[in-house]
Amino acid sequence: MSDATATSEAVCDAFPVTNRNKVKRAHERGSYDKAAVFAILDAALLCHVSYVIDGQPYCTPTLFWREDDVLYWHGSSASRMLKHLKLGTPACLTVSHLDGLVLARSGFHHSANYRSTMCFGTAHFIEDDGEKRKALAGVVDRFYPGRTLGLRPINSQEFKATMVVRMRIEEASAKVRAKNVVDDEEDYALPIWAGVIPVQMTIGADDPCPRQRPGVTRPENLSAYREGRRLDEIFVESQRAYERGSVAD
Amino acid sequence: MSDATATSEAVCDAFPVTNRNKVKRAHERGSYDKAAVFAILDAALLCHVSYVIDGQPYCTPTLFWREDDVLYWHGSSASRMLKHLKLGTPACLTVSHLDGLVLARSGFHHSANYRSTMCFGTAHFIEDDGEKRKALAGVVDRFYPGRTLGLRPINSQEFKATMVVRMRIEEASAKVRAKNVVDDEEDYALPIWAGVIPVQMTIGADDPCPRQRPGVTRPENLSAYREGRRLDEIFVESQRAYERGSVAD
Repeated sequence: MSDATATSEAVCDAFPVTNRNKVKRAHERGSYDKAAVFAILDAALLCHVSYVIDGQPYCTPTLFWREDDVLYWHGSSASRMLKHLKLGTPACLTVSHLDGLVLARSGFHHSANYRSTMCFGTAHFIEDDGEKRKALAGVVDRFYPGRTLGLRPINSQEFKATMVVRMRIEEASAKVRAKNVVDDEEDYALPIWAGVIPVQMTIGADDPCPRQRPGVTRPENLSAYREGRRLDEIFVESQRAYERGSVAD
Repeated sequence: MSDATATSEAVCDAFPVTNRNKVKRAHERGSYDKAAVFAILDAALLCHVSYVIDGQPYCTPTLFWREDDVLYWHGSSASRMLKHLKLGTPACLTVSHLDGLVLARSGFHHSANYRSTMCFGTAHFIEDDGEKRKALAGVVDRFYPGRTLGLRPINSQEFKATMVVRMRIEEASAKVRAKNVVDDEEDYALPIWAGVIPVQMTIGADDPCPRQRPGVTRPENLSAYREGRRLDEIFVESQRAYERGSVAD
């Protein structure tokens, strides 16, 4: 949805609902609010992108990043996906977080807690070198705010070898399950253990490069990536820092 | 690949390589071995399935399970995906595990450690009630071996409301990155911190159903799901237990 078609603030805050993104199943779990969609996207580094070649669907895992309602991903010019997207092609980018295993008193009510979003649009290569250069800084700084400034700059060979794809989100939906087990009323009386086993993605202990130059210490701008912390929370923080244009360190 | 086309043991151990599943980029990370593909599948509960409706690709996150080279997933008859698969349709089921963030001395060599597999085939509804019933026990017992026996059995309404999809893997590829940063030779001399920040999915503290019957304790067959353990390791163990037909409790 471009600014030109936005007729009210309420419209701006949500993606339009069409047959493509309408949540068909368990619709009480669904939302079209931009805030809900962005919160799920911003908690992730990995997405799955679907696209079609000759009627065959492909589901490719890749890193992505977001600026406003534009999603970016990148890769080598040798990648199947990126060759195909050259001319602009319908795509669906999905992000999912598994948050818990839900064990019920019947098989039917077993479930999972999760947060997921499906984003629809048309994926294009970025042809403009200036736009591509800006986007390529984003892939690092969005996750590690300010890091690009301290790196060996990109060279022309790397710049040529990297393709960046942009996709404005035309429609999207978010779906969340975040609650304990829901059993049939009569089943609560059964002597069966039920509940949620939460799961989370957490940071482990650093594994520094074995060829690290002596005296080089971990920079302050990576301090959020501490052992034991939740990865999704760090990614949301780093997205906020990136949006503030933070280039600390 | 059906048994009829298998001409040697070597062929049985790997999926055929075609234009559809050939790893085009970073092919040194790729494999077509069944063992490599199954190891990645078995470490997961969540997959992303891609399918096409009227030229539009959809990428749907869903739970799945495996028996030999057949993948299963399920859902309500109200789901968009499942309605579409009724007649048999090409699909791609992808599983990805994020294992680490790879920080390099240049933006170009930033990467991620991961394990992923893309599986191609034709997805069909299970029409036969007996086969469907067996598959539906699998969705619970594959993750929680032996649990189905202790549950309130499925009723006919639930059985009707649940659709199960099966897809024999015709082709698949696995792709793994599991190493420290690889920088350009001349960049190792730069005073820039580089290395891997490992990430893992771990179990949290139980959140039992608030309506748990007094005296009901967590069953022995869930003992693998202990706080702090890696989820992917538990899933591989439970798949092995499921394959052994273990119904302990």
